[in-house]
Amino acid sequence: MTEAIENLVQFIYEPVKEDLDRVAEDLQGLTAQAGLPGDGLLTQAIGGGGKMVRPAVTLLAASFHDHDHKMTIRMGLAVELLHLATLIHDDSVDNSAMRRGRATIDSLFGRNVAVLLGDYVFATSATFVCDTGNVRVIRRFSETIMELASGELMEHFSAYNWQQSRDDYEKRIYNKTASLFCTAAESGAVLSGTSEATSQALNNYGYNLGMSFQIMDDVLDFQGTEEELGKPVGNDLLQGTVTLPVLLFMDRFPQEPVFRRLMDGSRDESDLRQVIAMVRDSTILDDAMQVAAEYRTSALAALSGLENNRARQSLEALTNYVTHRRS
Amino acid sequence: MTEAIENLVQFIYEPVKEDLDRVAEDLQGLTAQAGLPGDGLLTQAIGGGGKMVRPAVTLLAASFHDHDHKMTIRMGLAVELLHLATLIHDDSVDNSAMRRGRATIDSLFGRNVAVLLGDYVFATSATFVCDTGNVRVIRRFSETIMELASGELMEHFSAYNWQQSRDDYEKRIYNKTASLFCTAAESGAVLSGTSEATSQALNNYGYNLGMSFQIMDDVLDFQGTEEELGKPVGNDLLQGTVTLPVLLFMDRFPQEPVFRRLMDGSRDESDLRQVIAMVRDSTILDDAMQVAAEYRTSALAALSGLENNRARQSLEALTNYVTHRRS
Repeated sequence: MTEAIENLVQFIYEPVKEDLDRVAEDLQGLTAQAGLPGDGLLTQAIGGGGKMVRPAVTLLAASFHDHDHKMTIRMGLAVELLHLATLIHDDSVDNSAMRRGRATIDSLFGRNVAVLLGDYVFATSATFVCDTGNVRVIRRFSETIMELASGELMEHFSAYNWQQSRDDYEKRIYNKTASLFCTAAESGAVLSGTSEATSQALNNYGYNLGMSFQIMDDVLDFQGTEEELGKPVGNDLLQGTVTLPVLLFMDRFPQEPVFRRLMDGSRDESDLRQVIAMVRDSTILDDAMQVAAEYRTSALAALSGLENNRARQSLEALTNYVTHRRS
Repeated sequence: MTEAIENLVQFIYEPVKEDLDRVAEDLQGLTAQAGLPGDGLLTQAIGGGGKMVRPAVTLLAASFHDHDHKMTIRMGLAVELLHLATLIHDDSVDNSAMRRGRATIDSLFGRNVAVLLGDYVFATSATFVCDTGNVRVIRRFSETIMELASGELMEHFSAYNWQQSRDDYEKRIYNKTASLFCTAAESGAVLSGTSEATSQALNNYGYNLGMSFQIMDDVLDFQGTEEELGKPVGNDLLQGTVTLPVLLFMDRFPQEPVFRRLMDGSRDESDLRQVIAMVRDSTILDDAMQVAAEYRTSALAALSGLENNRARQSLEALTNYVTHRRS
């Protein structure tokens, strides 16, 4: 991270630092939990913790109303655990060896353990949401798990489908990524006891933040070098995943021979690598970042009616972090 | 099924037939649900439906108090869907090609789809439980998913461990099987609004029914022929899963050379096949069925304080079905 980004992250987390530290402690506490077979399974899965963006959103979204912090800390923990469960299953589905600099459960213990541990972590996260006693939040959480799974299924079934529309792409990244950001934000708001209008505004913020987050992920996949990314440049496309830069490429270069070959069903790596090079050599990534910036604008607009407190400033700054991050 | 067994099943389901038909209809209705990619995925997974033992337990357990049938039908649907989700993941973990006479999701669409569809069905079942609005029942349901995953993990990590105790085995089959029977029974009771004592009695019944159900499963794995079973006789043991008949074998024949070879770490198929033959040629399966019969006695005892209505007679008859079934 550059110093500027580091300062930005500090600024964002500052108003909820104490509560976020509790979420991190509770997460580490789970690794000492008895009852789960397979020594160190959860320790390996949880690792040093991630960036904790999602629980930070929950805690910041709760900061527009006096509330019971125990409840929102619990919700933040559930949100981060749910994210972790999806990573365990995603790594198993993608057969990934490394995540956050550590060996994945899949690579250490095999796919079967990854499937079952993922199930266990999904269910654990849902149990923590039950501690809030709020059926609306509990239901929204289960629906989010449905949407996450559905988004991953969409990705699987739309691989190498060059005819999919922008709508298909947007629906898919909502399910896969933005849904959990909506839930992270809305649940914090609802549990804080704030007004329905504020809860809806924060859900809307979460949606737009999540959409720009995933588009930036899709852009970053085309940038940098294999060494920086730890995976091949354009890895998504090499696996058949059609993201926004690819859709913009298809719009821009319909006369290119490689475009026609793809439409005729080509999955040749040489063709895919040619598309990756053309995306990198054009202004397509700038155009894609422009789309992310539009979601950023909508995220800021969603906050515009809320009290201009320190938490709101953090949520605003978070939209900058998401659209300017380099990893 | 023999005619006697068929009559028994009819007798058991008769008092809740109408509600159970609704559960089956709602289950089939899900296959028409829009929003899930992959044509016919749920249709294939749900198939013609199974024996519906678990939702029958929920509906019968609700029959000791006047109640809102919509609520218990919804709960029965959730319980059956949860069972289905575990089958989808189990088939993926075991790499099974067939289930209930149909090709599995794993064999038709690959393991990745099986993992993601299983997640989707788990979450769908949890969402249906939210329709009850009862946080106690919702939490118990999430805990059950944790226990199910935990039981499967125990099975994985205890494979080929010949030193495990009866306690280890009982804990494992509680997690893997009896936990969901407890939840099926207790949730029906709680949602019916009956007394706490009745709910606890029905949870206790579910526990003992579930334990005898799994022990009978473990016995059936050693009985019959490969043609009848659709898998090798003693398949569990061939995969390293140590069940009650194997534990009883180890107690009975500690002087056998094959016992010593196992203790020395042998996983030779010829040794495992010798154990299977010895289990079949001895009275060990009768002894294991005797243990199942003891759980059956405890299940009946759990019911003894309840009103002697038609539902109770069904629950009693169900313990007979479980301990006398042949598949």
